[in-house]
Amino acid sequence: MRQSRLLLTTLRESPAEAEVVSHQLMLRAGFIRHLAAGMYTYMPLGRRVLRKVEQIVRDEMDRAGAGELLMPALQPAELWQESGRYEVYGPELMRIQDRHDREFALGPTHEEVITSLVRNEVNSYRKLPLMLYQIQTKFRDERRPRFGLLRSREFLMKDAYSFDASWEGLDQAYWTMFKAYHRIFTRCGLNFRAVEADAGAIGGEGGTHEFMALADIGEDTIAACTCCDYAANLEKAEPRRMEKLYSNPSLNTDKMDKFHTPGLRTIDQLVESLQIQPQDMIKTLVYMADDQPIAVVVRGDHEVNEVKVKHILGSEKFEIASSDAVSKATGTPSGFIGPCGLTIPVWVDYAVVQMSSGIAGANELDYHYRHVNPRRDMDLRHVADLRNVMEGDPCPHCDKGELKLHRGIEIGHVFKLGTKYSEKLGATFLDASGENQTMIMGCYGIGVSRILSAIVEQNHDQNGMIWPHALAPFQVHMIPISVKDSLQMQVAEDLYNQLQDHGVEVLMDDREERPGVKFKDSDLVGIPVRIVVGKDAEHGKIELVERRTSNKETIHIQDVERRILELIQQ
Amino acid sequence: MRQSRLLLTTLRESPAEAEVVSHQLMLRAGFIRHLAAGMYTYMPLGRRVLRKVEQIVRDEMDRAGAGELLMPALQPAELWQESGRYEVYGPELMRIQDRHDREFALGPTHEEVITSLVRNEVNSYRKLPLMLYQIQTKFRDERRPRFGLLRSREFLMKDAYSFDASWEGLDQAYWTMFKAYHRIFTRCGLNFRAVEADAGAIGGEGGTHEFMALADIGEDTIAACTCCDYAANLEKAEPRRMEKLYSNPSLNTDKMDKFHTPGLRTIDQLVESLQIQPQDMIKTLVYMADDQPIAVVVRGDHEVNEVKVKHILGSEKFEIASSDAVSKATGTPSGFIGPCGLTIPVWVDYAVVQMSSGIAGANELDYHYRHVNPRRDMDLRHVADLRNVMEGDPCPHCDKGELKLHRGIEIGHVFKLGTKYSEKLGATFLDASGENQTMIMGCYGIGVSRILSAIVEQNHDQNGMIWPHALAPFQVHMIPISVKDSLQMQVAEDLYNQLQDHGVEVLMDDREERPGVKFKDSDLVGIPVRIVVGKDAEHGKIELVERRTSNKETIHIQDVERRILELIQQ
Repeated sequence: MRQSRLLLTTLRESPAEAEVVSHQLMLRAGFIRHLAAGMYTYMPLGRRVLRKVEQIVRDEMDRAGAGELLMPALQPAELWQESGRYEVYGPELMRIQDRHDREFALGPTHEEVITSLVRNEVNSYRKLPLMLYQIQTKFRDERRPRFGLLRSREFLMKDAYSFDASWEGLDQAYWTMFKAYHRIFTRCGLNFRAVEADAGAIGGEGGTHEFMALADIGEDTIAACTCCDYAANLEKAEPRRMEKLYSNPSLNTDKMDKFHTPGLRTIDQLVESLQIQPQDMIKTLVYMADDQPIAVVVRGDHEVNEVKVKHILGSEKFEIASSDAVSKATGTPSGFIGPCGLTIPVWVDYAVVQMSSGIAGANELDYHYRHVNPRRDMDLRHVADLRNVMEGDPCPHCDKGELKLHRGIEIGHVFKLGTKYSEKLGATFLDASGENQTMIMGCYGIGVSRILSAIVEQNHDQNGMIWPHALAPFQVHMIPISVKDSLQMQVAEDLYNQLQDHGVEVLMDDREERPGVKFKDSDLVGIPVRIVVGKDAEHGKIELVERRTSNKETIHIQDVERRILELIQQ
Repeated sequence: MRQSRLLLTTLRESPAEAEVVSHQLMLRAGFIRHLAAGMYTYMPLGRRVLRKVEQIVRDEMDRAGAGELLMPALQPAELWQESGRYEVYGPELMRIQDRHDREFALGPTHEEVITSLVRNEVNSYRKLPLMLYQIQTKFRDERRPRFGLLRSREFLMKDAYSFDASWEGLDQAYWTMFKAYHRIFTRCGLNFRAVEADAGAIGGEGGTHEFMALADIGEDTIAACTCCDYAANLEKAEPRRMEKLYSNPSLNTDKMDKFHTPGLRTIDQLVESLQIQPQDMIKTLVYMADDQPIAVVVRGDHEVNEVKVKHILGSEKFEIASSDAVSKATGTPSGFIGPCGLTIPVWVDYAVVQMSSGIAGANELDYHYRHVNPRRDMDLRHVADLRNVMEGDPCPHCDKGELKLHRGIEIGHVFKLGTKYSEKLGATFLDASGENQTMIMGCYGIGVSRILSAIVEQNHDQNGMIWPHALAPFQVHMIPISVKDSLQMQVAEDLYNQLQDHGVEVLMDDREERPGVKFKDSDLVGIPVRIVVGKDAEHGKIELVERRTSNKETIHIQDVERRILELIQQ
């Protein structure tokens, strides 16, 4: 393609609204343009990359035996009512009425539609298993769209669904998809981890993994072992259970003792004033679980993992209590709550049980207890893993490693749905013995447009993007230094045609611009290989530059094709 | 692909809601499934065909130098207000509010978005011309969705837009697209005509052509010459102007004469009662044009072309007058209106002027005039082409041909928009002399999903669909007669692998079904070539059947690959 005919406007400055580098660079390099909050136009270069991602996804889905279909974006509200999600989903679900006042949802996901489809099409075990997918624009009215394509309101997704006659079948489908995802993200050139994840609002039994592209701006935190391949979303990651390390209560013979701590409400204040460490503290937080107050107790240096607590309680609504609610539930001003003597249910984290002595609120203004020995002094009817893991925690899966925390961008998700939707929507089949059974489902998503952001976060330098060969909008950027020099243009045109004839995608910068402008644009756009046709053209030579390494080689024109194909195949 | 793993359910009976054969067959053969009125899921076979159409469209757009982008489906209402279409578009435009009560439209088309995009990106003539396209799901809340994919509410479209610095540039872009469309529809294997069309509601100056797939169920009528390549939508088609055939008023020397026609209100009644021909009648209809009454006069056997009248009058609102309005405007009961003596404006069609003697209403209950000689007796201040052409009318473009009427399905549309949107949205550029100019636009649509219906309408028999090679969901249908026969299965599997290795798309019917069921399904699905592996497999032979002709040949296994490739290349 000739650059003069391409809609490609580069910007020298980053637009103010772009907070992260992938968003900045995609705007600056003319890959995307903002239309409304969380809605972007993919410009020709961005569209080309998007299509390459689509093609890789499609290849691997086909290879995994999945059939492609395309469901409507508009979904009748009735189906969402059948599944019970119409009320639950909240304002992220965009709702619309047609001219006859029938209600529709703009699909953020398609469990309802596909389950109702398969329920109508399949009635026998002989038609199972089934794996179906689509690549489609989805809609989610995010409360706070941001980071460009990372959290947008209209985005491209691959969603796949499996239907099986048995749980073993689901397991097989799940791991088939898991492996396909590995291949997809590897082919895309991403640095990623598959992590154990929390089942979350989508519901259902069984396992789930998230595929995370590692990046500092990621909205998720991942804990990964330094030795083995254990990795989990922070929501889900477990510290090693160290039963044998439980404190021996006999080690602490000091009696629990109330002391005056006027105005010391926070861990920081206590640590500073008493010259202790946060891990010597016992922290108590009050939550409202389905409108009932409960206390959660963790070590002073630990954070409550609300997802874990919510799951253990099995509550629908779960949120931190307001100061007023705390006072009302405990009779104590916040800052002085402690586990001893509370009348509301108390949930204690394992790590607290392992302490032999700690400082905790005394449920009385300006007083704390010291020498609190949990196994001796606390109500331990409810003990569980209730905290976030920390960097350095021992790995729960191997003996040697410890956990390290990373930030990640969720690019994929595999999920054992079980019978959540098939039960509600009545997707059943007759098994070999003629019995009616409920289909067992899995769902599998990939954020196709998100992958662009993830790649750019992982592949850029101060001058711009650096596209991996597999996703680059073009494979070669051809830059004649002077379009007015007929020899240079002749050489450039010949190479342009020759390379295209061999299936190489070439962008030819045929604009009348200064070389400096062309090089700056070329760095920004980040096509992996650049061919510069300059003065040396009269000696039959051009310069070949690799974007990632800045390696330059001057080579003969007759060697260009061979060398380019070498570089692409690398 | 193995049929046992494919979501493909065929139906023996046509679902009641399907009125036309393409809709019936696509449902019966499991290509699409109904989700809601005018909304369909493309099942795996349908999706494959759709992708083939997409690929042909993409190829030809790229070849025509168009750049692909992808704009959001959700469009801010503000842009539609800028263009003035937000109010005008009516209930077909689906409107939705986001969580902040901002209004959006679900795009039925993208003139506003692309014009605002290009206005921001392009400021100099040096960046023009530009041609941009996308393939995208569109939404249009049809009052009466029907015929399956032919008139649906969510559909796949290719929309392209050109931006030029001059009208000559637009002309060039227009014809480039025109030629690309010719190639696209030819490659799809469609029987189509490019027809001159009316500019319609989308507005703008200059030419427009529709590409029509010929089919009896088409919603449009086309007039095409039997000799030359003239073809036009009935809305637009003109009869030849026959100045020399104008009646010689001296031929009719009878004086105009009122006579009693009690109760004879319609052409049919007059024809029967007076033993005359409809073409001896002069028909007068009263319309309300922007709420003002006017009369339109055509020959008794002709139909008023309301589109033509509306354009000539330049009126916004145009509709037939009610009986009450007729009486009020003319003082005469309907059925006896005539052109002579009316006080409202009278518009007369050319063909009436050519009459030497006719019968017309006398503007008095139960009376008509006979011997009406239009050139002598009528007010001919407003004469124009106001009628639909008829089968047999002489061609307006050549001397020999006559017009024949066909029904057509609109599959594509090229349109010179001019400055309609660029003016309203302020899309301007600096020309070579530094002057500010308005960009000149064209728009170019293809109904991608519609093409499926058009193909099936043109390619089917009583047993099912007959896919042309270029769009077939698979190229070969492999049918082992008995999957329990290990020799047959071995031969089938070997051929399956061998053909796929050579890039041939094969659907293997590996189901345990009776041969009759398999053949019926195979006919219905309409894959162009069938390989039947039966008893002859033990002698190294298979049967090869062409779906379209039912031609059968028994050939040796070693000749299959060569023969299949031959058939595909045909």
